[in-house]
Amino acid sequence: MNKIRMIKGGVCAARGFVAGSTGCGIKTGRVVRDDLAVVFSEAPATAAATFTTNKVKAAPVRISVEHMRAGRARAVVLNSGNANACTGPGGMADARAMAAATADSLGLKPSQVLVCSTGRIGVPMPMPAILRGIASVKTARSGGTGAAKAIMTSDTFAKEIAIEVATRDGCFRIGGMAKGAGMIDPNMATMLCVVTTDAIVAAPVLRLALRESVEDSFNRITIDGDMSTNDTVIALANSASGISPSPKTLRDALDTVTRGLARMIVSDGEGVSRFVEVEVRRAASSADARRAAEAIANSTLVKCAWAGGDPNWGRILDAVGYCGAKMDEAKTDIFYDALPVATGGVVARTAAKLLRAVAAKKAFRVTVDLKVGKASHVVWTTDLTEEYVRLNLGE
Amino acid sequence: MNKIRMIKGGVCAARGFVAGSTGCGIKTGRVVRDDLAVVFSEAPATAAATFTTNKVKAAPVRISVEHMRAGRARAVVLNSGNANACTGPGGMADARAMAAATADSLGLKPSQVLVCSTGRIGVPMPMPAILRGIASVKTARSGGTGAAKAIMTSDTFAKEIAIEVATRDGCFRIGGMAKGAGMIDPNMATMLCVVTTDAIVAAPVLRLALRESVEDSFNRITIDGDMSTNDTVIALANSASGISPSPKTLRDALDTVTRGLARMIVSDGEGVSRFVEVEVRRAASSADARRAAEAIANSTLVKCAWAGGDPNWGRILDAVGYCGAKMDEAKTDIFYDALPVATGGVVARTAAKLLRAVAAKKAFRVTVDLKVGKASHVVWTTDLTEEYVRLNLGE
Repeated sequence: MNKIRMIKGGVCAARGFVAGSTGCGIKTGRVVRDDLAVVFSEAPATAAATFTTNKVKAAPVRISVEHMRAGRARAVVLNSGNANACTGPGGMADARAMAAATADSLGLKPSQVLVCSTGRIGVPMPMPAILRGIASVKTARSGGTGAAKAIMTSDTFAKEIAIEVATRDGCFRIGGMAKGAGMIDPNMATMLCVVTTDAIVAAPVLRLALRESVEDSFNRITIDGDMSTNDTVIALANSASGISPSPKTLRDALDTVTRGLARMIVSDGEGVSRFVEVEVRRAASSADARRAAEAIANSTLVKCAWAGGDPNWGRILDAVGYCGAKMDEAKTDIFYDALPVATGGVVARTAAKLLRAVAAKKAFRVTVDLKVGKASHVVWTTDLTEEYVRLNLGE
Repeated sequence: MNKIRMIKGGVCAARGFVAGSTGCGIKTGRVVRDDLAVVFSEAPATAAATFTTNKVKAAPVRISVEHMRAGRARAVVLNSGNANACTGPGGMADARAMAAATADSLGLKPSQVLVCSTGRIGVPMPMPAILRGIASVKTARSGGTGAAKAIMTSDTFAKEIAIEVATRDGCFRIGGMAKGAGMIDPNMATMLCVVTTDAIVAAPVLRLALRESVEDSFNRITIDGDMSTNDTVIALANSASGISPSPKTLRDALDTVTRGLARMIVSDGEGVSRFVEVEVRRAASSADARRAAEAIANSTLVKCAWAGGDPNWGRILDAVGYCGAKMDEAKTDIFYDALPVATGGVVARTAAKLLRAVAAKKAFRVTVDLKVGKASHVVWTTDLTEEYVRLNLGE
């Protein structure tokens, strides 16, 4: 009977973690805001990470993958303004230099430092400014929010969350920060997340818990179906609480943090006016349920309808029809919140006015009941607005 | 050494075909424009057709599939304003009634009539008005353009094309009409196309030629990645020219017609400001080449960049990276028209000004050279504009 309660803060909420940030003028050459952050565990820590599955991987992702092999890390250096992606061997050297400089400044080995970058791609990193920045960062218990702000790109708010979990033996904490699916400032969406905990967690346990938790949080969100070259989620556990939670307790707690951050990312999607939870129920298999939920969530036409507050069901049924999942039009029911909009593949008798009221809300749920099996899947997504297009017109 | 020349007209350009159209007020109840068309071969004809692969199929698609089993058909009845999709058993009866009424009026058997509908989905067809319309349609040699207009939804121009092919033995003709990826008026995109020829073509030969030709034309275009419940391409061959072209001659001629119509559809996509030909070269397999080309063409971010006239390559490389095709970032070259924008996965030395001039054109070509194999694939697509979103906001 563990109790989870929300507390203030982010990556420094857990004991033994400090963070700091500074401005290097990475994007424009002029320092207008912080664009570099460091998160540091004062004690040795176990680490786990998940990375983009895109075959085009940014240099910091490659370096972090390499450094993660030992399952131990104590610091993360992150920057916004430049993704260090598609930058060739020079970019690899730059990412290595960022890890080395951070290690130097914190008294660590370079392999204990992970690197995350987000921002423009295909542009060399302004290394002199970045290295000066890394040398000048002061980390402190109070530095979490500054770090969360420094990694923002087109995010409209800093994303942090922290919880305290009361177990029979005492309390442990988990905190986290993330940057979201902002795509104007860089050349594409990048999702970065750092989660810290003072619980005692062996590396293999942390790895499994993180993988599963990411699957049920960040891997369930989709803004536009594009997958970045830089996506990274890192977890560090430094044992400072002296509490060793059961895998189940850890997983529940971790889910609260990752799902909280994932929801923030969706809510802050570019030009977003609605948060939509899409659930596909009674599919023939988990893969089918996922395929159908993602087809709905990524359909340009469905998303445009939501932007217009239209409780559209034809476009939804259409997406389910072409996604490859087993389905029978004549069995399929579709709901907006609890209201049936289509029953057995044809229009339901719900008053249009009531359905429109649901689709006009800031947040609603679409449920598709396929009635061909037992599997279900939920994804969180958004509408597609003119504002989104305007923000992504490029140069 | 056959010569293909463009001639005036559409579905009535080939001898022995007549067409007509009328207004039934299908969408609004008021007759403001023609919304019903009939195409008729005065002589017996062989027929071939390809249909949407969406599991949700509109009633007219199901009926046409059934009537196509014999490989012979003499008439097509088409309407805009209502897709007769997701309409249950009532919709099936309505589509059958449309075929029967058309057969009646032309002295055919219902099984010789194919049915196409496009428009709103989930709404019952206004059958009394439609049946009155079918009974009143007058077909004539001059009716082709009227028919092409009657099937428009949000298309901004009627799409027709016709050619005459000079062979050693004499001339035969092929004509066609199509409606495009217009999505505001109906609840989704629907592509309908009727091709007529006065050549002598056995049904199995026509079937194969049409299937291959559709693969190289309509199946290469993508506006938004959504696939309709109603997509239908029909070919009728009535032997009126007395010419029996070789399969190769037929195929080349058919390609001229289908590719011409496919390009018109893309150019007339909703809110489109650019026509983009995407070619992926030297992929490991045809499937890979296609997957990569389609990932680029369907990437929301890539399309937004094009709308902004941005010769973006990072988003393109990113899409190739996540599409599943075999690729090596360090080998990949990307071009806008003939200008390299990325070489070996990093930025090329082409002046940005020159690249921007290409991306600002109404039509340009993006080539991705993967250098991992020998397969290539071309798709035709568009940008994604604010106007597109506005047009698709729904109700």
